[in-house]
Amino acid sequence: MKIFIAGLGLIGGSYAEGLTQKGYEVYGYNRTKESELIAIERGYIKDAGLKYLPLCEVVILGFYPQLNVTFLNEHKHLLKPGHIITDVAGTKVEMIPQIEAILPKGVSYVSHHPMAGRETRGIERADCNMFKGANFLITPSAHSTLESIEVIKQLGRDLAFKKITIIDPKRHDQLIGFTSQLPHAMAVALVNSDAYEETSSFTGDSFRDLTRIAMINEVLWTELFFENKTILIDEIEKFERELDKIKQALNDNDKVSLANLFIQSTKKRSGF
Amino acid sequence: MKIFIAGLGLIGGSYAEGLTQKGYEVYGYNRTKESELIAIERGYIKDAGLKYLPLCEVVILGFYPQLNVTFLNEHKHLLKPGHIITDVAGTKVEMIPQIEAILPKGVSYVSHHPMAGRETRGIERADCNMFKGANFLITPSAHSTLESIEVIKQLGRDLAFKKITIIDPKRHDQLIGFTSQLPHAMAVALVNSDAYEETSSFTGDSFRDLTRIAMINEVLWTELFFENKTILIDEIEKFERELDKIKQALNDNDKVSLANLFIQSTKKRSGF
Repeated sequence: MKIFIAGLGLIGGSYAEGLTQKGYEVYGYNRTKESELIAIERGYIKDAGLKYLPLCEVVILGFYPQLNVTFLNEHKHLLKPGHIITDVAGTKVEMIPQIEAILPKGVSYVSHHPMAGRETRGIERADCNMFKGANFLITPSAHSTLESIEVIKQLGRDLAFKKITIIDPKRHDQLIGFTSQLPHAMAVALVNSDAYEETSSFTGDSFRDLTRIAMINEVLWTELFFENKTILIDEIEKFERELDKIKQALNDNDKVSLANLFIQSTKKRSGF
Repeated sequence: MKIFIAGLGLIGGSYAEGLTQKGYEVYGYNRTKESELIAIERGYIKDAGLKYLPLCEVVILGFYPQLNVTFLNEHKHLLKPGHIITDVAGTKVEMIPQIEAILPKGVSYVSHHPMAGRETRGIERADCNMFKGANFLITPSAHSTLESIEVIKQLGRDLAFKKITIIDPKRHDQLIGFTSQLPHAMAVALVNSDAYEETSSFTGDSFRDLTRIAMINEVLWTELFFENKTILIDEIEKFERELDKIKQALNDNDKVSLANLFIQSTKKRSGF
């Protein structure tokens, strides 16, 4: 099967690497030519250029959400009936209807989200091993045919994702708000609240694990946060209410309540 | 050198293992005899029993903070001039003066804190490898002689800690409030704010890393939180103000401010 990847960054590049390894015939495109050259040199893609897009069965949009929309709008004349479009964006509700409004007749579209990444960007750091054991979320919408969903599922399997889940785009954005965006907001706030010189001598594994994601691609994540703004604010406030329970127990000298919050979290987390 | 470890739990047991490996002659005591038997069977200690305490040069208190005080009070008649007492408690300001009030004349005391642990408890999971590369904090006080500080430093080196830092107890509790207790409070609150059934299909590395410490020994950590209550509340509120900046940027549609918060955290975290 021929795959076209538009956007050869960290994720697009890693997709190209992994899919080529699995025997797909992969072509690509990137705005900066350096990334295309790296992709060719490393054998991730056979060749680069938009001319290959119409010849491929599957087009993967590897840009940030709004750039996926822009790219598709600019190049919709290259799409043909039978094409299956997908994307790897981290938020869905804002973007999907914009993409669907562009699609020519006969083109399928199945959005998905690979839950993997690195604290870095760019094809230089591409590494398809990041997908091993990770979650792969498929968010079908009006233009998703059963056949196209099956093709995207197979991509997930071939990239070695552990668990493939099909989920409604709205539910996706809610859960991502909680499991991904909120933790990133917390990590950023924790690091930014650091008032000490000696912090690095006082970090255990917990602090390092928790703040790793405070090294964050500010262009991507600003867009992701705003694409999911209402839900994220809601999740932050839900979290703040739970944090306040801990503070309240301390202020009330209520050891039993604090211990119960710890017992609750231990039980809940052990189930993940 | 002969070492007596009172409290053969996860940390005390791991100390016994590591120090025996390094050629120390280690004896121990635990309230439950099962842990003493495990320590003997595994070769972590030569023998168990309070009768060995007076014969050892160094006594390590491996209990939770307040139990260290209780133990020392009950067994102070076993202490002799020349003894060096230390402990592994995670908070210092409340405990140290209580311990110093008990010490007989001629006994040195140097408190310290090994910044390592596991999401579990008990000598069954003891493993001195947990100290490799970790931070080792020494908090000298009125009864710490230069010689006793040197002995405790050497214990830290022999247990393979990476960095040994000498710090005032008050500053220690402030930094621990920020780098250890606050992250634990955040992880607990995050897990407890989980309102979804499908969470486990939506977790990436970041969520798993961040919530690992929500599996928490509720007896130990309730005590640690209350021992450091004032500082911890202050750290929680400092963190909440930073989180509010993120929320504010979202509410104000202020993408520049949000991106700047991300740039700030990336720069800061890269320095750890």
